[in-house]
Amino acid sequence: MMKGFCTQVEDDGKSSFVPNQRRTIRDVAAVAGVSISTASNALNDTGRINAKTRERVRLVAKEIGFRPSAVARSLLSRRSHSIGILTNDTYGRLTLPLAAGVSEVLLDHGVSAFLCPTSNDPRLAQLYLEALLDKQVDGLIFTGTRLDLQPPEILADLPIPVVHAFSEGPPDRVSFVPDDEQGARLAVEHLQSRGYRRIVHVTGQSNYLAARRRADGFRTLVGSDAEVLFGDWTEEWGHEAVGLLFARPGPRAQAIFCGSDEIARGVIDALRDRGVDVPANMAVIGFDNWEVVARQTRPPLTTIDMELNILGRKAGEAILALTRGDHVRPGVFRLPCSLVSRASCGIRM
Amino acid sequence: MMKGFCTQVEDDGKSSFVPNQRRTIRDVAAVAGVSISTASNALNDTGRINAKTRERVRLVAKEIGFRPSAVARSLLSRRSHSIGILTNDTYGRLTLPLAAGVSEVLLDHGVSAFLCPTSNDPRLAQLYLEALLDKQVDGLIFTGTRLDLQPPEILADLPIPVVHAFSEGPPDRVSFVPDDEQGARLAVEHLQSRGYRRIVHVTGQSNYLAARRRADGFRTLVGSDAEVLFGDWTEEWGHEAVGLLFARPGPRAQAIFCGSDEIARGVIDALRDRGVDVPANMAVIGFDNWEVVARQTRPPLTTIDMELNILGRKAGEAILALTRGDHVRPGVFRLPCSLVSRASCGIRM
Repeated sequence: MMKGFCTQVEDDGKSSFVPNQRRTIRDVAAVAGVSISTASNALNDTGRINAKTRERVRLVAKEIGFRPSAVARSLLSRRSHSIGILTNDTYGRLTLPLAAGVSEVLLDHGVSAFLCPTSNDPRLAQLYLEALLDKQVDGLIFTGTRLDLQPPEILADLPIPVVHAFSEGPPDRVSFVPDDEQGARLAVEHLQSRGYRRIVHVTGQSNYLAARRRADGFRTLVGSDAEVLFGDWTEEWGHEAVGLLFARPGPRAQAIFCGSDEIARGVIDALRDRGVDVPANMAVIGFDNWEVVARQTRPPLTTIDMELNILGRKAGEAILALTRGDHVRPGVFRLPCSLVSRASCGIRM
Repeated sequence: MMKGFCTQVEDDGKSSFVPNQRRTIRDVAAVAGVSISTASNALNDTGRINAKTRERVRLVAKEIGFRPSAVARSLLSRRSHSIGILTNDTYGRLTLPLAAGVSEVLLDHGVSAFLCPTSNDPRLAQLYLEALLDKQVDGLIFTGTRLDLQPPEILADLPIPVVHAFSEGPPDRVSFVPDDEQGARLAVEHLQSRGYRRIVHVTGQSNYLAARRRADGFRTLVGSDAEVLFGDWTEEWGHEAVGLLFARPGPRAQAIFCGSDEIARGVIDALRDRGVDVPANMAVIGFDNWEVVARQTRPPLTTIDMELNILGRKAGEAILALTRGDHVRPGVFRLPCSLVSRASCGIRM
């Protein structure tokens, strides 16, 4: 079909119509045999134009792959229908599920997202932001790798709306974060409902807001004197923590609630090294639902999912509303986590 | 400084200059007290204009945060200075390092990348592509999660250049992929140089091109009858393969070259379960350098790095050249892998 058109035009000698090049209104006009202004009127439903001609022009435009320029439209609307996602995540573990949620929402509105991986480098962040503003993005989503990481200073005063996702922005902005306390309570409730009593919490560094919040959620249900072992976000710390728990006298814990799946993996491996059966002798629950880790522990890990895709969708909806000029209530919104049950928590007899 | 300008303008009552809104040439003109055409001439270095006025206009533009519209410029140049990255990776493990490499290269040329995570859904891919073409992206990078995954059909005939990264496109396109054979040889050479002889290769599904290529590289050095156990890309298969190797009679392997870090992790864990010391009694080497896995095996894993960031940079350079209209030699380019030495390969006495 397209070939036919090309040949026809070249035969006419009217146009230097080259296949596989971006089509312009000029190409449409040449192929349809009308003036550029007629072609434009036909495509934009402006001016007076014969219905048949309009149909023909539209058909030609479709056949040769002409697209009305979003660029030209955005000049008129002063909206570029694009936003930027600025992330300091280098491994993509958090960013991609989140960005996928954002993009899915934007896609329905013809808005696309520029991805800007800053690798935590303020100079890179600055350069990306310059490029985004230069492209007149309608808004920006900032996503961090930890909630309490200070967003780049350059985000403070921008001429476009900014939404924070997995990052807590200032109170006059909209921020979406997982509800870490609720997630922790969900984990503890799951253990308690299955009959586990002496529950210990092994988690990451206490200078992480997420670690402290999860610990708070844990203590709410287990008691304010409940034991929390802060350490690192690593498997190694999981091993070490089990070493500490087993080295001391007194009644042993029945379950370990871990602050991350990686810690849980270390804990499970260390328990196996000691011949402790999970879940028969001890239950272990993680946090993250990072599938590559959680699915491959032995046994597979029951864990808390931060629902990053939903978080991304919420951030996408908020930035869309803001770029349309709609009011969005500012503040930090904590979104509920969910529990993914696998095999590391049994039922305590 | 900006505040000063705002107040001044409002006092004059000449402009409805609202702080924190995107600035237009109109704002610049109002604040500088010149006509819009003078402001435009001053900023674009067109027309005749007093040097002092030009300076003042430019200073004002900078102070109030006006940016000459890239959108307007792209209408003239017919380049949007943006490209799309279409990926079917859902976890971000491959995409983010690769996209970071792409973006770093683009950034130096003021080009930004739209990220389109298709989640392997052809309908989503189509929608993303529509949105990208609508935004007049200058080019597209397609990245897969496996080399032999058929790229979406819609990529076949596009009016813009397409570069494949971690995906093999048709011969008339430019594709960058890791050199799997060379990577495998690197692994085997490392083992052989350390005195390991009976080397077995435990890898993923044989219907993966990457698995077959790595096996080919392995056989090149170890011999055409060298043993390759194809299975899954999972830890579980690593466990199972060790079970198979230990269940049979005859001299035991001295080293296991694994097709992925996840398999290697399973292998190392299974060896520990059997009381086999790595590397004293057996060496294990992986493939991927997926740090979250490779750093946390016990002992930490020596492995092959596919240099995804460099691969992304190459793809970025190629798409930049193509969008400028430069010739780029088509074909599949295999980029060398590197070896990351940790602790899972010792020296065989």
